[in-house]
Amino acid sequence: MLSGPFLDKNFIGSTDDFDKSKIVLLGMPFDGTCTNRPGARFAPQQIRVESVGIEEYSAYFNTNLSDLGFYDAGDLEFPFGAPQETLDIIQKNTDEIYRYNKKILGIGGEHLVTLGTIKALLKHFDNIAVIQFDAHCDLREQYLGVELTHSGVMLQIAKLIGFENIMQIGIRSGEKGEFELMKKHSTRAFNPDELEKFRNKSIFVTVDLDVLDPSIMSATGTPEAGGMTYRELMDWILALKKYNIIGADIVELAPDYDIAKVSTATACKLIREVLNIL
Amino acid sequence: MLSGPFLDKNFIGSTDDFDKSKIVLLGMPFDGTCTNRPGARFAPQQIRVESVGIEEYSAYFNTNLSDLGFYDAGDLEFPFGAPQETLDIIQKNTDEIYRYNKKILGIGGEHLVTLGTIKALLKHFDNIAVIQFDAHCDLREQYLGVELTHSGVMLQIAKLIGFENIMQIGIRSGEKGEFELMKKHSTRAFNPDELEKFRNKSIFVTVDLDVLDPSIMSATGTPEAGGMTYRELMDWILALKKYNIIGADIVELAPDYDIAKVSTATACKLIREVLNIL
Amino acid sequence: MLSGPFLDKNFIGSTDDFDKSKIVLLGMPFDGTCTNRPGARFAPQQIRVESVGIEEYSAYFNTNLSDLGFYDAGDLEFPFGAPQETLDIIQKNTDEIYRYNKKILGIGGEHLVTLGTIKALLKHFDNIAVIQFDAHCDLREQYLGVELTHSGVMLQIAKLIGFENIMQIGIRSGEKGEFELMKKHSTRAFNPDELEKFRNKSIFVTVDLDVLDPSIMSATGTPEAGGMTYRELMDWILALKKYNIIGADIVELAPDYDIAKVSTATACKLIREVLNIL
Amino acid sequence: MLSGPFLDKNFIGSTDDFDKSKIVLLGMPFDGTCTNRPGARFAPQQIRVESVGIEEYSAYFNTNLSDLGFYDAGDLEFPFGAPQETLDIIQKNTDEIYRYNKKILGIGGEHLVTLGTIKALLKHFDNIAVIQFDAHCDLREQYLGVELTHSGVMLQIAKLIGFENIMQIGIRSGEKGEFELMKKHSTRAFNPDELEKFRNKSIFVTVDLDVLDPSIMSATGTPEAGGMTYRELMDWILALKKYNIIGADIVELAPDYDIAKVSTATACKLIREVLNIL
Amino acid sequence: MLSGPFLDKNFIGSTDDFDKSKIVLLGMPFDGTCTNRPGARFAPQQIRVESVGIEEYSAYFNTNLSDLGFYDAGDLEFPFGAPQETLDIIQKNTDEIYRYNKKILGIGGEHLVTLGTIKALLKHFDNIAVIQFDAHCDLREQYLGVELTHSGVMLQIAKLIGFENIMQIGIRSGEKGEFELMKKHSTRAFNPDELEKFRNKSIFVTVDLDVLDPSIMSATGTPEAGGMTYRELMDWILALKKYNIIGADIVELAPDYDIAKVSTATACKLIREVLNIL
Amino acid sequence: MLSGPFLDKNFIGSTDDFDKSKIVLLGMPFDGTCTNRPGARFAPQQIRVESVGIEEYSAYFNTNLSDLGFYDAGDLEFPFGAPQETLDIIQKNTDEIYRYNKKILGIGGEHLVTLGTIKALLKHFDNIAVIQFDAHCDLREQYLGVELTHSGVMLQIAKLIGFENIMQIGIRSGEKGEFELMKKHSTRAFNPDELEKFRNKSIFVTVDLDVLDPSIMSATGTPEAGGMTYRELMDWILALKKYNIIGADIVELAPDYDIAKVSTATACKLIREVLNIL
Repeated sequence: MLSGPFLDKNFIGSTDDFDKSKIVLLGMPFDGTCTNRPGARFAPQQIRVESVGIEEYSAYFNTNLSDLGFYDAGDLEFPFGAPQETLDIIQKNTDEIYRYNKKILGIGGEHLVTLGTIKALLKHFDNIAVIQFDAHCDLREQYLGVELTHSGVMLQIAKLIGFENIMQIGIRSGEKGEFELMKKHSTRAFNPDELEKFRNKSIFVTVDLDVLDPSIMSATGTPEAGGMTYRELMDWILALKKYNIIGADIVELAPDYDIAKVSTATACKLIREVLNIL
Repeated sequence: MLSGPFLDKNFIGSTDDFDKSKIVLLGMPFDGTCTNRPGARFAPQQIRVESVGIEEYSAYFNTNLSDLGFYDAGDLEFPFGAPQETLDIIQKNTDEIYRYNKKILGIGGEHLVTLGTIKALLKHFDNIAVIQFDAHCDLREQYLGVELTHSGVMLQIAKLIGFENIMQIGIRSGEKGEFELMKKHSTRAFNPDELEKFRNKSIFVTVDLDVLDPSIMSATGTPEAGGMTYRELMDWILALKKYNIIGADIVELAPDYDIAKVSTATACKLIREVLNIL
Repeated sequence: MLSGPFLDKNFIGSTDDFDKSKIVLLGMPFDGTCTNRPGARFAPQQIRVESVGIEEYSAYFNTNLSDLGFYDAGDLEFPFGAPQETLDIIQKNTDEIYRYNKKILGIGGEHLVTLGTIKALLKHFDNIAVIQFDAHCDLREQYLGVELTHSGVMLQIAKLIGFENIMQIGIRSGEKGEFELMKKHSTRAFNPDELEKFRNKSIFVTVDLDVLDPSIMSATGTPEAGGMTYRELMDWILALKKYNIIGADIVELAPDYDIAKVSTATACKLIREVLNIL
Repeated sequence: MLSGPFLDKNFIGSTDDFDKSKIVLLGMPFDGTCTNRPGARFAPQQIRVESVGIEEYSAYFNTNLSDLGFYDAGDLEFPFGAPQETLDIIQKNTDEIYRYNKKILGIGGEHLVTLGTIKALLKHFDNIAVIQFDAHCDLREQYLGVELTHSGVMLQIAKLIGFENIMQIGIRSGEKGEFELMKKHSTRAFNPDELEKFRNKSIFVTVDLDVLDPSIMSATGTPEAGGMTYRELMDWILALKKYNIIGADIVELAPDYDIAKVSTATACKLIREVLNIL
Repeated sequence: MLSGPFLDKNFIGSTDDFDKSKIVLLGMPFDGTCTNRPGARFAPQQIRVESVGIEEYSAYFNTNLSDLGFYDAGDLEFPFGAPQETLDIIQKNTDEIYRYNKKILGIGGEHLVTLGTIKALLKHFDNIAVIQFDAHCDLREQYLGVELTHSGVMLQIAKLIGFENIMQIGIRSGEKGEFELMKKHSTRAFNPDELEKFRNKSIFVTVDLDVLDPSIMSATGTPEAGGMTYRELMDWILALKKYNIIGADIVELAPDYDIAKVSTATACKLIREVLNIL
Repeated sequence: MLSGPFLDKNFIGSTDDFDKSKIVLLGMPFDGTCTNRPGARFAPQQIRVESVGIEEYSAYFNTNLSDLGFYDAGDLEFPFGAPQETLDIIQKNTDEIYRYNKKILGIGGEHLVTLGTIKALLKHFDNIAVIQFDAHCDLREQYLGVELTHSGVMLQIAKLIGFENIMQIGIRSGEKGEFELMKKHSTRAFNPDELEKFRNKSIFVTVDLDVLDPSIMSATGTPEAGGMTYRELMDWILALKKYNIIGADIVELAPDYDIAKVSTATACKLIREVLNIL
C-alpha cells in the first residue's frame, strides 16, 4: 500500500476495529417523508466530510474521540420512496449491532428513521424510555391517510413503548391536537433535573437538530425560531451523562442549505459530545 | 372544477370570504428607497409560499389561524422608481380596508410603505400612536435632498401624528442627530411594561424585522448585530395583546438572501402571532 | 373589494375562467422517489412566483400568453412518502381535465408524476405516443426492489403504451441495460425531422428539464453535462407545433439550488412556449 | 507613507494620473427602476474588487491594460428612489469628462443610467449612434404611468437621437409592441458586418450584460435563456475596433446573485476588451 | 477632476491625510495556513465595500468615525504559499506605522498575521501583553512538522512575550495538550474585571472573529458553536476602553461564505468600536 | 459485521483490492498557492461524495466503471502553508504507485500538485510528454519572488521535461510574457488531430477544469469565459484513447462555490471518462 500520510475517510476519531468497538455510528440517509424541505439524506456523508474540521478533544468531557471506541459503519442504502422497506433495513441492522453488544449512534436522515431503531431495541431491552429533543411534537396521527411520516414518528413510538416513557424537550410547534396529546400523556421537560424521572430506564436519546434555534442550526427541514442555544443543549447533554443511555440518534440536518457549514460543524460537535454519554 | 385536493395559494389559514373577514393581509412589494441592500419587494410572495411550512396553530396564543378571520388580498402593483405614487396606492387601498371596517396587516416591502398606511389611518382614527420595532431610528431628515426614504420614514410619520405618539423599541443604529432626536422627543422603550403609556391610544404596530438579531433574521437589507432574540420579541408581542391595536405591518424581509429560508419562516411565524393581537 | 392594482397570484397570462379555458396548468409538487437531489416539490410554487418576471409575449410564436386560454389550477396536495397514492391523485385530476375537453400542462415535481398523467390519458385516447426530452433513459427496472421511481418512469409508461410509441431525445446517461433497452425498442431521435414518425399519433410531450445542459439548467436533481442549449431545445419545440399534441408536462426543476433564478426563469419561458404547441 | 507592496484599490491597470488619462471609468451604482431583481447598485464595487483576479493582458488585442491610459474615478453617489436626480448627476459628470477631452466607460447600475450619459454626449457630438447589446428591447412606453425605467431607456434615447441611429443586437424579449417598434424603426443586427451602417457615426456602445446567455451571465436582473456565448460577443467587440467609438457602458450586473463570481469575472474581462475599443 | 458626489473607496469615515492620522487601518489578505476553510484573504476588500452600509456614528461610544483620525492604507500584497515572507512584509510595514507614532488596526486574513505585527511591536514597546478573543487556543506546536500556522500563532507569540502576558478569552476548542498549556501558563479570562491584571501593560488586542457564536459570525474558517453573542463581546470592548491599547487586529472573516453579508457587516461594526478603544 | 446494504464510501465503481487494481485514484487536497480563490482542497472529498450520483456506465466508451480496475486510495494529508513539503509527499506516493506497476489518477487540489507527480514519473519513464488542458498558460516565472505557484507549474514542468514535450490546449489567459513563451516554445493545439505529434510519447494528461467554460464549470478558482463546452472536451478525451497515457490528473475544482453541484458532478463524469483512457 501507499505510505501516505492519509486523511481519514471515516468520522474523525473512529476505530477501524469493529470487533473491539463499543459504539457503532450508522448513517441513515433517508428523507422520503419530510413534510417541508427534504435533503436530510445528504447529512451522514457531509457530517463525515466535515468531521475533519473539528477537534477530537472535547473540552466539555475532557476526552479524546479516539478513546471512546466507536466504529463508523458507513451509510445504509435504502430504496427510494419506500418508507416501510427503509425502516425494515434500519431495524435489521440495529438489531445486529445490539446482538454484538454494541450501542448505536444513528445519523439521519429524517426523524422517521428513529422508529426503525426503536423497533429493534424492543427485542433487547425491557424498560425503554425515549428522550426527544425537538422543536416539533411529532405526534401527528396521519397526513392524507399516511401514518409513517417524520411528523408522526413519536406517536408511532409511543404506541410501542407507552406515552409515559417519552420525555419531550424543546417542543414549540405542532397542531393543536398534538399539543393536547403531549400535555395529557407524555412528559414535557424544561429542566435537566426532570431527567431523574427516567433514572431507572434504558434511555434512548433522539436529537432532532431543529431543537436548536435556527440561528445556530439553519440547515434543517423545518426551522423554528425560539429554540435552544447550543449552550442550553449542552447543559442537557452533560446532565444525561449519569443516566443509562442505551443508544442515540441525531437527525434532520439538511446540509445543502448549509452554505457556511455552521450547521454541519455544529452537528459534528454534538455527535462528539453524544458519543461521550453512550 | 377539479376535485384535488389542492394546496392553498394564499397565506396559510386565510379565508376566501372577504366580506366576513376582519383582517386584510396586504402585500406591498416596494423597495425603491432602500439605502443598503434591496430585495424586500420579493417578501410578500415568498412569505405566502413559505407559509405552508408553518403550523396554523400558535402555541403562544392557543389559537388556529383559521379562527382569526383574515383575508389574503394579494400584492399591490406599483410603478418602479416612483415612491410617491407607490405611497398613494397604499394609502388608497388601506383607506378602503378601514371603510369596510377591517384592519390591515401590511407585508412589506421596505419600511417606507408604513407612511402610506398611516396616512390612510389618519382619516379613520383620532388618537393614533405608532409602536416601532426596529434596529434603526429611521429619523433621517434627507439623503442628498430626498426626504422619502426608508431611513426617514418615522420622521415623516412623526410629523403627522406627533413625536410623542411614537414608541421606539430595539433601536441600536442611526446617525448622531437621529439619536438626539429620539432621546429628546420620542419614547424609547426597553421593557413591555412601558407599553402602558399608550393604554388609551389607537396603536399601529410596525415591525421592521431587523429589530431581531441578524443571527435569526439574516435576510434583511441592513442587518445590525446586537438585536433581539425571537423570544424577546415574543415577550413584546404577547404584551401587546391587551392593547387597542388598530393595524400592523411587518417589513424589510429580503428573501433572496435567505438560502436556508430561516428568515422567511420566522417572518411567517411572526405574522401568525401578530394576527393574534389584531 | 380593494381597488388595487394587484399583481397576479397565478402564472402570468392565465385566465380566471376555468370553463372557457382550453388548457389547465396543474402543479404536481412530488419528489418522493428522487434518486439524487430532491426539491422538485418546490418547483410549481416558484415557477408561479417567477413567472411575473417574464414577458407574456413570445417572440418565437408571436403570441401573447393571455390569448392562449389557459387556467392555472394551482398545486395538488399529496401524502408524503406515498408514491402510489400520489399517482392516483394525479390520474384522477387529469382524467377530470380531459372529461372537460381540456388539455393538461403538468408542472412537476419529479418525473414519476408523468405516469399518473399517462394512465388518465389512456381512457381518452387510442393512439398515444410519448415524446420524452431527458438526459436519462428512465428505463430502470427497479432499485432495491422498488419499481415506482423517477428513474424507471418511462419503462412503466412503455408497458402501458408500447415501447414503439416512445421517442427519446437528448438521452446521455443511464445504466448499460437501459441503453440496450432504448436502442433495441424505443426511438432515440436526434433531429426534429424524425418527429414525422409520430405524425398520426396523439402525442404527449414530457420535458425533463435536465435535457438542457446544466450550464443553463443547473437547478435540477441530476445535472448531466453535455446537454442541449436552449436554442437547440427551441428548435424541437417549434417543430412540434405542427403535430397533434394532446398534453405535456415539464418536470424536475429543483428551485432551492437556483440562487440566481436562471433555471426557474428558463422553465417559465419554456412553459410559455410549450403552451403555444398545445 | 508605508513601503508595502500594496494591492490596488482601483480597477486593475488603471492610472493614478487623471490629467494624462484618455478614458474615465465611472461607477453608476443605481438600480432604482429595475422591474425584476434589483442589485445592480453593487456592480461597480464588486467589479473593482474582482478585477485583481483577471490578467492585465488581453490575448484578444495583445495589449496590457496599463498601456490604455484609463482612470478609475470611483462611484458616483445618488439619492435613493430619485431617478431624475440620479440622471442629472450622471449627465453632469459625463459632461465634465468630455470637456476634459476624455471618453467615458460607465459601469452600471441598471440600464437607465445610459440615458444620463447620452444626454451629456449630445452637447459634444453631432452625429451620435448607439449600439445596444441587450436581451430586451427596452422600448417600453411606460409602466403604470412612469416613463423613466430601465425597460424603456432605449425609447427615451431614440427620442433624443432618432430611431434610425439605434442598432439593437441580441434582442430576444419584450412586449409585442416593443418588437413591432423595433422592427419598424430601429436596426436589429445579427452579424458584425452590419456595423458598417454606422461607419460615419460617433458611436456609443451600451452593453446590457443580459445579452449574454445566462449560462455565463447568471447574475443579472432579468436573465433570458437563448443568448450569446462569450465568444459570439467577442466577435462583435473585435469588429467594433475599427469604428469611431466615443464612449461605452456596461450595465445590469447584479453581483449578490453571483456566488461563484463567474458573472463578475466575465464583466471584468469584458471591460478589459471594451477599453481596447475606446 | 469630476464634481461628483462620489462614494468613498476607503473604509467609511477614514481620513485622506496620512500625516495627521493617529491610526492606520491595514489590510492583510493572507490565508495560506488555514487548517479548515480558507478565504480570509478576501476579508479586507469586502469589509471596505460593506463599510458604506454601516453608520459612522457609534451609539456605544457616542462618537463619529470621522472624529477618530484613522487612515485606510489599503491591503498589503503577499507572495502566495510563503508564510514567512508574508510575515516579513507585515512586520516591516507595522514597524513603519509605529515609527510614524501611529497605531495599527490590522484587518486579516487569518490569525497568523498577528505574529508579524507583534514582532514589529517588540521594537517599540517594553511591556507588551496580548489579549486574545478566540474560539480556539491557537497553541498547537506544529502540524506535520510545520510551526507557522494559524492554529499555533499564540504559541509563537508566547515564545516572544511570555505566556504570562497572554490573556485568552472565549476559548472553547483545541487539542488536549493546548488546553493543558493554556490552563498551566496563560490567563484564561471569563469576566471583563479580569482585564485589571494587565492594567500596566501595553496591550495589543487580537480578535479572531470566531470568538463570536457562529449564529452571528457564520463566515469564518472554523465556526465553533457555543460562542459569545455580540452583546457579550461588546461588554469586553467597552471595558477595554480604559486600558492602554497600543494596537489591534481583527482576523478570520471569510466573506465568500457570507451570503446575507451579516458576518461582514458585523465585522465592520466591530471595527468601528475597536477604533474607539485605540 | 452488519448486513447492510451499504452505500460505498469510495468513488463509485472502485475496487477494494489494491493489489489487483491497475489505476490508483489519489486525492491531493492542497490549495496553498492559489492566486485567486482557494478551496480546491475540498475537491477530492466532495467528488467522492457526489460520485454516487453519476452512473457507473459510460455511454461514450460503453464500459462500466467496475470493469476498469481502479482503487480509491483516499486523500493524502499535507502540512499547511508548505508547498515544497506537500510536493514531496505527492512525489513519494506517486513513486510508490508506479513501483507497483499501476497508473495514477490524481485528484487536486490546485494545479501545483502536478509538479510532484511529474517528478515521480521521471524515474519511471524516459519519454514523457504532458498534455495540458487549461484556461491559463501557467508559465509565470515568479510572483513576488516565489516560484512554486499554481500559475507557474507548467514552467517548472517544462524545465524538467523540455518545452517541446508540452502541449497546451484551451489556453486563453496569461501575462504577455507567458503567451510569448508559449508561442515560442511549446505546442499550442486547437484540434485533436494534433495529438499525433506525441504518438510515441509516454503521455501524462493534466486537466485544469477551468479549461471548460465557466458556464458549465463555475466552481473553480479563476473562471475564464470563452472556454470549451463539455462536448468539445469530450472530443479531446475520446481522441486520447488511442495514445499511450501513463497517468493523469484533474485539478482546480473548488466545490464550496458549487451550490447546485453542477461543477462537481461534471468533474465526476470527467473522471469516469479519463479512467477509460488510462
